[in-house]
Amino acid sequence: MADIGSRLAGVVGDVLSGAEAAEEYGHDEALSTSLVQPAYVVRPRSAEEVAAVLRLATEERVPVTARGHGTGLSGGAIPSADGIVVSFERMNAILEIDTDNHVAVVQPGVSLRELDERTAAEGLVYPVYPGELSASLGGNVATNAGGMRAVKYGVTRHHVLGLEAVLPTGEVLRTGGKYVKSSTGYDLTQLIVGSEGTLALVTEATLKLQPRIRHNATVLAPFRDLAGVTAAVPKVVASGLAPLILEYIDGLTMGAITYTADLQLGVPDEVRDTAQAYLVVMLENREQDRLDADVEAAGQLLADLGAIDVYVLPGGAARKLVEARERAFHTAKAAGADDVIDTVVPRAALPSFMAEVTAIAQANETFIVGCGHAGDGNVHLALFQKDADKRATVLKALFGAAMALGGAISGEHGLGRTKRRYFLDLEDPAKLALLRRIKQAFDPAGVLNPGVLLDEGQA
Amino acid sequence: MADIGSRLAGVVGDVLSGAEAAEEYGHDEALSTSLVQPAYVVRPRSAEEVAAVLRLATEERVPVTARGHGTGLSGGAIPSADGIVVSFERMNAILEIDTDNHVAVVQPGVSLRELDERTAAEGLVYPVYPGELSASLGGNVATNAGGMRAVKYGVTRHHVLGLEAVLPTGEVLRTGGKYVKSSTGYDLTQLIVGSEGTLALVTEATLKLQPRIRHNATVLAPFRDLAGVTAAVPKVVASGLAPLILEYIDGLTMGAITYTADLQLGVPDEVRDTAQAYLVVMLENREQDRLDADVEAAGQLLADLGAIDVYVLPGGAARKLVEARERAFHTAKAAGADDVIDTVVPRAALPSFMAEVTAIAQANETFIVGCGHAGDGNVHLALFQKDADKRATVLKALFGAAMALGGAISGEHGLGRTKRRYFLDLEDPAKLALLRRIKQAFDPAGVLNPGVLLDEGQA
Repeated sequence: MADIGSRLAGVVGDVLSGAEAAEEYGHDEALSTSLVQPAYVVRPRSAEEVAAVLRLATEERVPVTARGHGTGLSGGAIPSADGIVVSFERMNAILEIDTDNHVAVVQPGVSLRELDERTAAEGLVYPVYPGELSASLGGNVATNAGGMRAVKYGVTRHHVLGLEAVLPTGEVLRTGGKYVKSSTGYDLTQLIVGSEGTLALVTEATLKLQPRIRHNATVLAPFRDLAGVTAAVPKVVASGLAPLILEYIDGLTMGAITYTADLQLGVPDEVRDTAQAYLVVMLENREQDRLDADVEAAGQLLADLGAIDVYVLPGGAARKLVEARERAFHTAKAAGADDVIDTVVPRAALPSFMAEVTAIAQANETFIVGCGHAGDGNVHLALFQKDADKRATVLKALFGAAMALGGAISGEHGLGRTKRRYFLDLEDPAKLALLRRIKQAFDPAGVLNPGVLLDEGQA
Repeated sequence: MADIGSRLAGVVGDVLSGAEAAEEYGHDEALSTSLVQPAYVVRPRSAEEVAAVLRLATEERVPVTARGHGTGLSGGAIPSADGIVVSFERMNAILEIDTDNHVAVVQPGVSLRELDERTAAEGLVYPVYPGELSASLGGNVATNAGGMRAVKYGVTRHHVLGLEAVLPTGEVLRTGGKYVKSSTGYDLTQLIVGSEGTLALVTEATLKLQPRIRHNATVLAPFRDLAGVTAAVPKVVASGLAPLILEYIDGLTMGAITYTADLQLGVPDEVRDTAQAYLVVMLENREQDRLDADVEAAGQLLADLGAIDVYVLPGGAARKLVEARERAFHTAKAAGADDVIDTVVPRAALPSFMAEVTAIAQANETFIVGCGHAGDGNVHLALFQKDADKRATVLKALFGAAMALGGAISGEHGLGRTKRRYFLDLEDPAKLALLRRIKQAFDPAGVLNPGVLLDEGQA
């Protein structure tokens, strides 16, 4: 491997190895994984450097794992031992904010926060908020990140118009462009988005922006039970009010996040004692008077749908609640959760799924709490179960239940290393075989992120 | 081939051959192609029948071309001589309108008109209107059809949540489902959408629906020249008015479609004489008073942006104008156009592209008129040039100009047989090689629609 190191140094300016290829490059935020320190870390400054590294890796059959800012929750950025980490921290430029075409062109190491600040200055917005503003756009593209606003604006893949991506064999490709429609060959952009660094490394992304809407307001509606919340959701969607956020938070999670954030929502004790679940509805409009009318309509609708009461949150409290909800993962982590998942089901199947969650939790003596993107059927659960075998049983049962209801294992976190085994167990073998052939079409030597999404060394 | 016929009859109930496999199965609406009569036409009633036909075709290396309602404009449904046409006319059921999840589940032979009527009854809408309501959903999925409302709602791929699709080797796969977000393996749904029947045959599609918005209004703004229109477009998008339709129509095309449709728009002669281009802006809102305010704001904005005048069209005239615009292809065809194309460029590049179109037309003694989805940079041009070689020169120049501006050959019609040669000429060879490897991953025997999108017999 010493030879690999010197050859890497010949093609990329910035190579770390040994103790320098430190701990920080060996993990992401997944709760159930162990640190794996890579043999080398390279920090390229251009697509050409990335291509040179990948050519070498393919030639020498060395595993390569791309890394953004390491905020992923499924172990997708955990490298192989003796592998190379390609960290995009030095490719962190916003190359262009194109106000005529409403697109941003960014390098993978740009953070969501940086992009948000730059677009705000132009009255535009990149409307994907996965809840972690320090995350990189490259990581978001790799996992097809979602977040609370997906119910209105969709997820990452709906906003990626084009890519520059490097194949493991070293070719630098451009896909898509500054346009929203194309019927010109297979959509490579959409195939690479969400592929978790297993098909190609993204070195540039062209992102669709929207006009930034100034006025928003948040309505909080406590319900007696979760079934009341999930039954209300399709009606809120059908109303045409087009909420920006439509979240459920179970009573325990609400207690935890409000306590952690020292958040006063003005919900009286007697209501809080009765409420087992909350619906959070954020509305936006470019006109304040229309927003006011919509908030009133939403409040009336929620009351009609069985909310115990309806609270229009003051701006500060609303912002803090959304932030606290975005920090729910960290709250769960601090409380000692052993895993977090983000299963998706058809939104009308939420009551059935939550009933199954309760049954699975009870049958396996596991404590499960959660919240989720109710408008999308995307359920975030924190599992408390120290025993790894029992946890695996619970996870397989949960994923199986979601799939039986027509859902999927992950709505936005990706499979990574942590959910791959369940995917391989539960998914149709004919489909897996096709995914492996597609992987082979991109990565004949199987060097890109082995062990993530598909099998170890399957190519 | 007689043997193939009897074996087909053994696996699918409805097989036509010889004279029965008639002329109507040998063409679509492309202007520049010739009829190719297939050896067999099968009309399956189930995915299992489709799978049996494909297994046989792969075994015997017989080309297979899927057919919806034959309204495509690029020859994607033109079969191979001695090949099999799989016509989906008997798989034409709307399987479900799911009002809780806001999805429709349809077989490929359902027409847009049928789906529109059924969704209207539920207060929902499938918002992709490519302009030909007799088109099939299967065909729309194959070409990733777009249309005028894409500026607000996106194109077919943004509304296809899941598929049942049959691989050429006979496996029946299910991809996606009744949810809008997933990070669970490569997105096969998005890969198959727009693949023009070359990767798999779609036997069922799960489509995202929206609440149907009742109120709309149309503003017509004549401009002195096309540059005025294209300069106005980004400002209208940036306004936040979120137009449903944002179309340009050049003066000649407007003359032709209004004459053909006997359409009175109330534009005085002196304005019409000055106007070389028109912008059509349709707005919608679920509240009439908000719509009225938006129409006023749009009118003021267009006047500020240099429109000669602004006309709010009465409902009947607006509907007729949109219909006439949707019939622009037929108007061009009736006028003797020799080809139609639908190149896409970044919308801010429209002025540059249209200047190039004029120069290319003049240099090659070709008459070119058009209209287009201005908000999307999707330019529909009708070419009048009888000489096939000269036409090929013009087409290659036009596509090359669009690509040089960061655009693509087709925005929504697909490559089919008619644009494939330009695609193979102009596209990056490394990307083409990757597309061929992906094709190989799906279709090892190369039986699905050879000669469409990629090379003849390339697998």
